[in-house]
Amino acid sequence: MKTRGKHSFKDLGFAKPEPHRMSRQGFPEAIYCPGKTDAQILSIFENLLEGPGPVIATRITPETAKALVMKFPTSRHYSTARLVIAKPVKKKTGKRVGVVTGGTADLPVAEEAAITAESLGRDVMRLYDVGVAGIHRLMAHQPELSKAGVVIVCAGMEGALASVVGGLVACPVIAVPTSVGYGAHFEGLAPLLTMMNSCASNVSVVNIDNGFSAGVVASLITK
Amino acid sequence: MKTRGKHSFKDLGFAKPEPHRMSRQGFPEAIYCPGKTDAQILSIFENLLEGPGPVIATRITPETAKALVMKFPTSRHYSTARLVIAKPVKKKTGKRVGVVTGGTADLPVAEEAAITAESLGRDVMRLYDVGVAGIHRLMAHQPELSKAGVVIVCAGMEGALASVVGGLVACPVIAVPTSVGYGAHFEGLAPLLTMMNSCASNVSVVNIDNGFSAGVVASLITK
Amino acid sequence: MKTRGKHSFKDLGFAKPEPHRMSRQGFPEAIYCPGKTDAQILSIFENLLEGPGPVIATRITPETAKALVMKFPTSRHYSTARLVIAKPVKKKTGKRVGVVTGGTADLPVAEEAAITAESLGRDVMRLYDVGVAGIHRLMAHQPELSKAGVVIVCAGMEGALASVVGGLVACPVIAVPTSVGYGAHFEGLAPLLTMMNSCASNVSVVNIDNGFSAGVVASLITK
Amino acid sequence: MKTRGKHSFKDLGFAKPEPHRMSRQGFPEAIYCPGKTDAQILSIFENLLEGPGPVIATRITPETAKALVMKFPTSRHYSTARLVIAKPVKKKTGKRVGVVTGGTADLPVAEEAAITAESLGRDVMRLYDVGVAGIHRLMAHQPELSKAGVVIVCAGMEGALASVVGGLVACPVIAVPTSVGYGAHFEGLAPLLTMMNSCASNVSVVNIDNGFSAGVVASLITK
Amino acid sequence: MKTRGKHSFKDLGFAKPEPHRMSRQGFPEAIYCPGKTDAQILSIFENLLEGPGPVIATRITPETAKALVMKFPTSRHYSTARLVIAKPVKKKTGKRVGVVTGGTADLPVAEEAAITAESLGRDVMRLYDVGVAGIHRLMAHQPELSKAGVVIVCAGMEGALASVVGGLVACPVIAVPTSVGYGAHFEGLAPLLTMMNSCASNVSVVNIDNGFSAGVVASLITK
Amino acid sequence: MKTRGKHSFKDLGFAKPEPHRMSRQGFPEAIYCPGKTDAQILSIFENLLEGPGPVIATRITPETAKALVMKFPTSRHYSTARLVIAKPVKKKTGKRVGVVTGGTADLPVAEEAAITAESLGRDVMRLYDVGVAGIHRLMAHQPELSKAGVVIVCAGMEGALASVVGGLVACPVIAVPTSVGYGAHFEGLAPLLTMMNSCASNVSVVNIDNGFSAGVVASLITK
Amino acid sequence: MKTRGKHSFKDLGFAKPEPHRMSRQGFPEAIYCPGKTDAQILSIFENLLEGPGPVIATRITPETAKALVMKFPTSRHYSTARLVIAKPVKKKTGKRVGVVTGGTADLPVAEEAAITAESLGRDVMRLYDVGVAGIHRLMAHQPELSKAGVVIVCAGMEGALASVVGGLVACPVIAVPTSVGYGAHFEGLAPLLTMMNSCASNVSVVNIDNGFSAGVVASLITK
Amino acid sequence: MKTRGKHSFKDLGFAKPEPHRMSRQGFPEAIYCPGKTDAQILSIFENLLEGPGPVIATRITPETAKALVMKFPTSRHYSTARLVIAKPVKKKTGKRVGVVTGGTADLPVAEEAAITAESLGRDVMRLYDVGVAGIHRLMAHQPELSKAGVVIVCAGMEGALASVVGGLVACPVIAVPTSVGYGAHFEGLAPLLTMMNSCASNVSVVNIDNGFSAGVVASLITK
Repeated sequence: MKTRGKHSFKDLGFAKPEPHRMSRQGFPEAIYCPGKTDAQILSIFENLLEGPGPVIATRITPETAKALVMKFPTSRHYSTARLVIAKPVKKKTGKRVGVVTGGTADLPVAEEAAITAESLGRDVMRLYDVGVAGIHRLMAHQPELSKAGVVIVCAGMEGALASVVGGLVACPVIAVPTSVGYGAHFEGLAPLLTMMNSCASNVSVVNIDNGFSAGVVASLITK
Repeated sequence: MKTRGKHSFKDLGFAKPEPHRMSRQGFPEAIYCPGKTDAQILSIFENLLEGPGPVIATRITPETAKALVMKFPTSRHYSTARLVIAKPVKKKTGKRVGVVTGGTADLPVAEEAAITAESLGRDVMRLYDVGVAGIHRLMAHQPELSKAGVVIVCAGMEGALASVVGGLVACPVIAVPTSVGYGAHFEGLAPLLTMMNSCASNVSVVNIDNGFSAGVVASLITK
Repeated sequence: MKTRGKHSFKDLGFAKPEPHRMSRQGFPEAIYCPGKTDAQILSIFENLLEGPGPVIATRITPETAKALVMKFPTSRHYSTARLVIAKPVKKKTGKRVGVVTGGTADLPVAEEAAITAESLGRDVMRLYDVGVAGIHRLMAHQPELSKAGVVIVCAGMEGALASVVGGLVACPVIAVPTSVGYGAHFEGLAPLLTMMNSCASNVSVVNIDNGFSAGVVASLITK
Repeated sequence: MKTRGKHSFKDLGFAKPEPHRMSRQGFPEAIYCPGKTDAQILSIFENLLEGPGPVIATRITPETAKALVMKFPTSRHYSTARLVIAKPVKKKTGKRVGVVTGGTADLPVAEEAAITAESLGRDVMRLYDVGVAGIHRLMAHQPELSKAGVVIVCAGMEGALASVVGGLVACPVIAVPTSVGYGAHFEGLAPLLTMMNSCASNVSVVNIDNGFSAGVVASLITK
Repeated sequence: MKTRGKHSFKDLGFAKPEPHRMSRQGFPEAIYCPGKTDAQILSIFENLLEGPGPVIATRITPETAKALVMKFPTSRHYSTARLVIAKPVKKKTGKRVGVVTGGTADLPVAEEAAITAESLGRDVMRLYDVGVAGIHRLMAHQPELSKAGVVIVCAGMEGALASVVGGLVACPVIAVPTSVGYGAHFEGLAPLLTMMNSCASNVSVVNIDNGFSAGVVASLITK
Repeated sequence: MKTRGKHSFKDLGFAKPEPHRMSRQGFPEAIYCPGKTDAQILSIFENLLEGPGPVIATRITPETAKALVMKFPTSRHYSTARLVIAKPVKKKTGKRVGVVTGGTADLPVAEEAAITAESLGRDVMRLYDVGVAGIHRLMAHQPELSKAGVVIVCAGMEGALASVVGGLVACPVIAVPTSVGYGAHFEGLAPLLTMMNSCASNVSVVNIDNGFSAGVVASLITK
Repeated sequence: MKTRGKHSFKDLGFAKPEPHRMSRQGFPEAIYCPGKTDAQILSIFENLLEGPGPVIATRITPETAKALVMKFPTSRHYSTARLVIAKPVKKKTGKRVGVVTGGTADLPVAEEAAITAESLGRDVMRLYDVGVAGIHRLMAHQPELSKAGVVIVCAGMEGALASVVGGLVACPVIAVPTSVGYGAHFEGLAPLLTMMNSCASNVSVVNIDNGFSAGVVASLITK
Repeated sequence: MKTRGKHSFKDLGFAKPEPHRMSRQGFPEAIYCPGKTDAQILSIFENLLEGPGPVIATRITPETAKALVMKFPTSRHYSTARLVIAKPVKKKTGKRVGVVTGGTADLPVAEEAAITAESLGRDVMRLYDVGVAGIHRLMAHQPELSKAGVVIVCAGMEGALASVVGGLVACPVIAVPTSVGYGAHFEGLAPLLTMMNSCASNVSVVNIDNGFSAGVVASLITK
């Protein structure tokens, strides 16, 4: 492992993974799988296991997940969330993280966020399918929402839910636009713009479908 | 079923369907199928059947439609419209809804609108393939058009038909841009912008290919 | 006046106004002022006065408005709405039109819609500054909203209000995105996309800042 | 004057005007004024006068036009069209060019096209303000339209007029989107896309507000 | 066949083909195949055969083409151009049409334009793969180019060829942006914008990959 | 003041301010000044003063600021930040907020964020003009950065600084794209996309130039 | 072979390859494979072999590559880089070319650039997976970077690496945005804009995923 | 002056200029003036004068330029190029830099590039107004072009000139899209896309109107 002060990394030629990013930054380097070969993913995963973990592979296909779990039996595949995780933080600490969705089709993104936060040691409260077309569903759960230290809102279509939640809670809201929609949705551009322009001042935004970053930011906030 | 005043919903964990939205708003909650598993769709459909109906699944694949109709034999599959519907409103009331298309390829969207309106109790007049390249085809049907209480115009390509119909009738026009086209069409963006900028002041617009909302709005207008 | 069956128009060379569009379509031809000279606006206004009215000039500057009102003293200038109107329909008929805004800066567009509807013979209920950042302000006025036959929602920023209102009422909602905002708002594109993708199925949309069309469509719906 | 075979040009350092482009291509080099100093415009104009003409300065401000006409008294300023022209072709030949607009605010672009065509020796038939919101105005003039060898359609807002005219005539149609509009018009993008996607196969398009090119192409077609 | 003056059409319910558009406008109604079923295409083709022809199906798949040619043996399939044509105009009249491409991958679009023009009775001169990266290839063929009455330029990548050809010839140029390219090409948007902004004033543009319209416009110009 | 449970607001007709949002959500309702008249701003400011404060007017012009400070002498104008603030939180609590800029022209946005955070009771560490073109300037201040509980990064041009800071610290990063730039910057779109796609997983983003929301989110995180 | 002065080309009808472009411009004409048939590719490759080489086919599929290598056994397939090359320049001359990537998924583009440069006679230094999320990995290799005569930076996601490298070296930087990313990445638009707006003044940009041009420009610079 | 190894900078609070960037990178830090106050510009300029120079202020207004030259009399104002420069490199070394424009309105950008290169010690060959509408003007100067070590091409409108020059020379081409144009030009987006998609493989691109970076890159290439 090459080092430069406390900043170390491994040099595999095709990749330079950093097993100790968790120590350095409080969250680990994830393996974003698309565009990488199975061999590359397996090798990076193995090298990251030298650090304290968690080791997280995101957007993984079922086939690659199977290969990974077979080789590293302590890792686990979360199929809805498209994650494989090894060495999660076991002990739950910090404030609770709320994860809210507008609809059922937002679940893969929401689960990516929720399981990321759990693997980083947070307790997660899930509240799914409470979109604004029937806003009483959200209102019915306000007491639970108000106990969270941060709320992640995953919403496709017009993404209005982020502003509505932002207007109800007294904590930061992480908005995740999802690619759920069609037509003038432009694969998530519509809710992204909605969320960027939120009139609720406690809302910040991550990339379309980026449940992982939402989980990381939420975990850092509630540490 | 959870309730909060007259606002009720079911809690399935992955979804919170509202069987009585028809009573509350005059139109039902639809199941937008893409991104949902068959099991989720079947479960939501079953729960919505507890309400007064209609129960409507949109953008359904032939495979899922088959499973749905097999399990709920009173439901019916409309293959061109990509709908499965149960418990439609039988009695036709209100003013007539006109549904017009620019071309033949717009039929799936037009039928989604037409059958939605019919399932909500409206009588529908269909007028297909009357695009402006041969405007005499539209002019020949002006008498029928003038009897409608609202006209839905589904058009792809440049979408000019909405403005032309808007300039001929004395009722509201619901414009539905379709994704039929290529090149600088950008999957429906071109007719969407055309329709948004209509010089006919009686035109309002719904999302690209959104026949369902067009059918709902038209039904509410003609109630 | 040239005629072709019941379709008549005047030929001024630079313009061909149609004084009797109100009779033909139930709403009048408006004079969209930008890009026209004062002389052109005055001449078109004068010619349209030959019809039954109302005669409506939109997006008018204070200077041109002054000239118009001086020449045609029965006309009136609505400065916030940027309208000059003559021969309004006096008698109020039909269902009530609700006009709702997200914020104070949306007033010019909202007033354009409200006064257009009033000039076409509708009674208007105004509800301003009830954006979703403090959603209890909207909830407090639900009883009034539920009495409207149609609701016009004017909103800038992220435009989430249209979906929220759409989920609360049992009538059609006309959404008007406004150019109020900055940054990733792109002069109204953000709320336009929000509204086009509304998960509330009773929402249709008109152009950014187009209060006039919203007023026309609302008047036709409540006739 | 530098020459290379029959291709000649003048070298002014800051510009290399080609006085004989009319002989080489059948239309002259125009001086597009924005971004050039008055001194540059005057110098280029003077050098182009060495050729057979016409010499055409486009998008000229009233101030620069005044300076030009003062220095070259045989030139003439067309203020609506924002043109100064010297040495126009006097004799009218070829088929007639139709110039049609959707509204009154399109006149500057339409006049730029019309006067360009006239200066190149064509007879022009003007038909202004016949937009599709009152399509009977266009229909009333079909006999005149059918006599044109080419029709230029200048339209802002949604630009639907180009397709409608395209569907009525038996000659090529040159569509010119104009920047007249607001909101989702995006300064002419909306009618540009409309016209690019025209379902009338005899329509081709030039740049937003580009009356000059429309006049040139129309003149070449009718030669 | 329904008629309204000299404007006739057939009413098939799902379509209203116009067999005599060739007589009315000098070019026939084409069948744009995408989004239509084989049964619909066959039926429309059969009905259009009642007119004078040519009958042209565009963007046809090899499978549908096979079915069409089997049923109507006088029709012919042009596989590169993705066309099936029956009853072409046999006699070649008018000026010659030049068809030029920037590269080899532009051939499908170029052939669609060329064969359309030929089926409408024009003689076509093809000049393929003369893009500006090796501009001497184009210069070597200038004598042939100068004999054309119109030149169609099909180009992907940056589409610069249209301007260069426009600067060399004394006739109208029809520019066809193609979807050949990648990255910041945005499926043809890049050459479309290039061609719309051409500094050569004799260039007008049709939709991305729209060889058919280019062929029609070119045929009308050279009639 | 109207109330609905603990949710109160004032009804001024043109606005419905909520003086107690600070109690309800931990941050106050701000007055976004553009599009509001001076009279409206003064009235809303006065009504918000009934709450616990802080009362914050954003994007205020120097003229309006002068009027405000004259009427409410306890308020203060921050000219670079374009803020007027009354009743700020005096006592500094919570973790320190870092505010970093890429360049000097980003100062108005950075100061809006910094002063907002200070008025909400946070201690702020400013680090200005440390853009990546000379990254050693940032590296020289790493010790200070590492003491912050959250870092706000304001950057225009390409906005790369957010990712670089994100890769160095162990806390959440709030990225604020600024409109500083030109050409393909598209008034802030370029750094917005940069920041949305950050490879550093601890970065979330607010709207272009939205220093206020950045200050609010940062204050909530460090509470 | 047709010639015009020293500018020669072959005329194959569907293509006009230029075997001697290497002599004329210092880099060869490449065969961009998408959109060409195997027969066309083989024929062009064969004709280009008449020149001095190198002969380079880009974006080639494994199938076509196999056919090419079988027919021309002296050619070689580079599968990661999607290249087939014959007659490479053997002797390494000029300054060293650095090729740097942000991540592992950028390798296909980076290898296209690297192997192109090698085939043109340059020595290449590869430095992969040094993105800014762990900037110490880049810093650790600064000594190698400083020896390059030009550095090619291939980066997807937000593409910040180009600016950071640009701020560290004393030579030109060629930035290649890659399509690696998702959501608001828009298939490479995000890093393209990042790189276009770089605050490092030594950065210029080529098209998304265009490793070939990067390799050519780098080779010309270091000649 | 703070230092970190050989990397030094000054800390002015609002800015951290680096006077010795010329030594470190071979080109100096420029002062991009928009968004900075006169006082800030003067202070940064004064601090940068401590380094070896050149000191360059870009996009400067005539007023600020006057103040700068008055305070630092050895500096010089280049009004067309909008530059103020002190301590230019006097001795001309390296290969010649060619600067080419499509039109006269591109001169401010071209001069910014040319004078930047001259101030960095290069000899510059200017060739202005040789756009492709009259390509013989460019061809007439090919001998001069072929002597350059790099060619900068500044072009607005469709920007085709970059590809044409790229296809003629044997050196790298730096393309600078300019904001000269209108309509579908989108303030430089059109030529930017043209240049990004160039079929000439020796072309790389800098930001719209960014003559400064073009001058820097060209100087580094020809060193």
